[in-house]
Amino acid sequence: MQRRRFLKSAGLGAAAATTLAAPAIAQSMPEIKWRCASSFPKSLDTIYGAAEFMAKRVAAATDNKFQIQVFAAGELVPGLQVLDAVQNNTVECGHTAPYYYVGKDPTFAFATAIPFGLNTRGQMAWMYFGGGRELINEFYKDYSVYGITCGNTNAQMGGWFRKEIKTVDDLKGLKFRIGGFAGQVLAKLGVVAQQIAGGDIYPALEKGTIDAAEWVGPYDDQKLGFNKVAQHYYYPGWWEGGPQLDLMVNMGQWEKLPKSYQNILEAASADAHCWMIAKYDAQNPKALRELVAGGTKLLPFPQPVMEACYAAANELYDETAAKNAKFKKVYDNWKPFRAEQALWFQVADNTFDNFMIRQYRANKL
Amino acid sequence: MQRRRFLKSAGLGAAAATTLAAPAIAQSMPEIKWRCASSFPKSLDTIYGAAEFMAKRVAAATDNKFQIQVFAAGELVPGLQVLDAVQNNTVECGHTAPYYYVGKDPTFAFATAIPFGLNTRGQMAWMYFGGGRELINEFYKDYSVYGITCGNTNAQMGGWFRKEIKTVDDLKGLKFRIGGFAGQVLAKLGVVAQQIAGGDIYPALEKGTIDAAEWVGPYDDQKLGFNKVAQHYYYPGWWEGGPQLDLMVNMGQWEKLPKSYQNILEAASADAHCWMIAKYDAQNPKALRELVAGGTKLLPFPQPVMEACYAAANELYDETAAKNAKFKKVYDNWKPFRAEQALWFQVADNTFDNFMIRQYRANKL
Repeated sequence: MQRRRFLKSAGLGAAAATTLAAPAIAQSMPEIKWRCASSFPKSLDTIYGAAEFMAKRVAAATDNKFQIQVFAAGELVPGLQVLDAVQNNTVECGHTAPYYYVGKDPTFAFATAIPFGLNTRGQMAWMYFGGGRELINEFYKDYSVYGITCGNTNAQMGGWFRKEIKTVDDLKGLKFRIGGFAGQVLAKLGVVAQQIAGGDIYPALEKGTIDAAEWVGPYDDQKLGFNKVAQHYYYPGWWEGGPQLDLMVNMGQWEKLPKSYQNILEAASADAHCWMIAKYDAQNPKALRELVAGGTKLLPFPQPVMEACYAAANELYDETAAKNAKFKKVYDNWKPFRAEQALWFQVADNTFDNFMIRQYRANKL
Repeated sequence: MQRRRFLKSAGLGAAAATTLAAPAIAQSMPEIKWRCASSFPKSLDTIYGAAEFMAKRVAAATDNKFQIQVFAAGELVPGLQVLDAVQNNTVECGHTAPYYYVGKDPTFAFATAIPFGLNTRGQMAWMYFGGGRELINEFYKDYSVYGITCGNTNAQMGGWFRKEIKTVDDLKGLKFRIGGFAGQVLAKLGVVAQQIAGGDIYPALEKGTIDAAEWVGPYDDQKLGFNKVAQHYYYPGWWEGGPQLDLMVNMGQWEKLPKSYQNILEAASADAHCWMIAKYDAQNPKALRELVAGGTKLLPFPQPVMEACYAAANELYDETAAKNAKFKKVYDNWKPFRAEQALWFQVADNTFDNFMIRQYRANKL
């Protein structure tokens, strides 16, 4: 064998050796161009920007050999059809919030956030070490998707309300722009949940077609101008305490990538994850201050309202688990993990946070 | 020009083309082997493991062209001399907690944590978008170091105490194993701060040479067995609410890296950052439960003790800023950022966390 190999090589000569070398290089660093459909408009520079950040990192890490072009919502496909576009290989990948697809299966919600779920760090811990990513990617297989963690908005705000919410009864008949699973929780308490695309919320709230609308947090909400048409800004957005974004990659495209590019894509997505979390935390304080200075009334949801919503959420999860085996499988793993996170987070982190917040409120920071 | 280029190519022939192609490839993906000195022992698989995770990602992203071998504390250099080794180019990079070097300059503390500082997310927000990384890397220039964010332990525990701490007076004369800047804060309240290497803490605490010792958190502390020699486990570790690790890279080595490798190293470090944060959050709950089940008494520092320490810390910062211009420059940027983080964190995130913790305590999670 040894001799035969040698002879074969020698026989091919220098020119042939060139030909042999070239494919080896092409194989390890091929030129690849992908398209990434984002669920978000360019104007939301943080949630949209995370995909751009990831793509720039991938290009820079591969000497521009692996290029991903990001398209804003609506440029290639509507923002809420990113999953379908990835599944059908219309685009190689998409940057989206998996819970947009709860209409297909409520199990998608776990990949982003479910009401009264995990905070930013808890969601990441579950995904990385609690079995979350494995469960979600197993579930994604039916959609030919490979998911990679790529961003989190951190706990969101509860939204903009034209009237104050004083009791659980005030929820009855309230026309509230709120998506997916959270809408189903609130429906149990009489809320009329409305699905309205981002650009249509402002006029609906202005005209009074809806009574309230939730979006993200101070930095994004201020850009959309909701403070001009609703005065009461509630917190927290208990339906998304740490909503995570995914880079959804078409499974066939993922499998075709060289291992090195797979690793670069995963590392660049983790980098974008940090970038987005940090950018929201750095930008939200100023926006919040400006909103309050401009007359926005910042209010916590009353405790009985939170309690009633929590009870309704648990009811919904039990009902959903009873009729959906995929949901149940993830829920059974996720629920004890959530309890463990609270057990730990209450000790060092929460006590530290509470102390620092007390100093802030006492004007001592 | 077009014709001339063509002729030149043709004239060189196939063999020469091979020769030309090879250096181009070598330039973009050269074979590089680095050594990374960790400040931590292998047994602490999370804080040590982050550097290993980073190195594996870098190797996988470059088809093993860029290899970083990680050495545990003491294998090449002592754990607390990683900065010196990087500065002297004894190793190309090191994974360490910058606050270990407050003896050289207290400004180092900002890169990890200063007492009553930022939490995990706040520290990341400051580093990424608050000007923190720029300020720290400007400061690092005097040490020929380029710093990259790479890991966080999350809020630490307050440590193991043989006796209960009931009042501020109980701190007087207390022999407490605690490092750097926090030791200086506590010295103002009569604590005798001791610097003892990790491996020597257990016997010192057992013999009563020291009265108390702090380390990291439940997962790591349990491994070192402190619960066997001290009963009272206090929280929070107010001197490190979100202590961050850095990958310190020798500046000359950093500048020699191809741009693609620089990008891969930064992305892999961000990935390791997520990995470490998530791993601690996932592992600490179980360790904490086991410690408490084994008889450990979990106690919060009394509020007056926290307040006294906070006042002492502020005093120390003002004194330090008055005599150290580098410290003052960073402190003046950092202090208002900390206040802004509390302003924002108290609203959506902390209210959400507090609600979930209340449900946990009411046995409803």
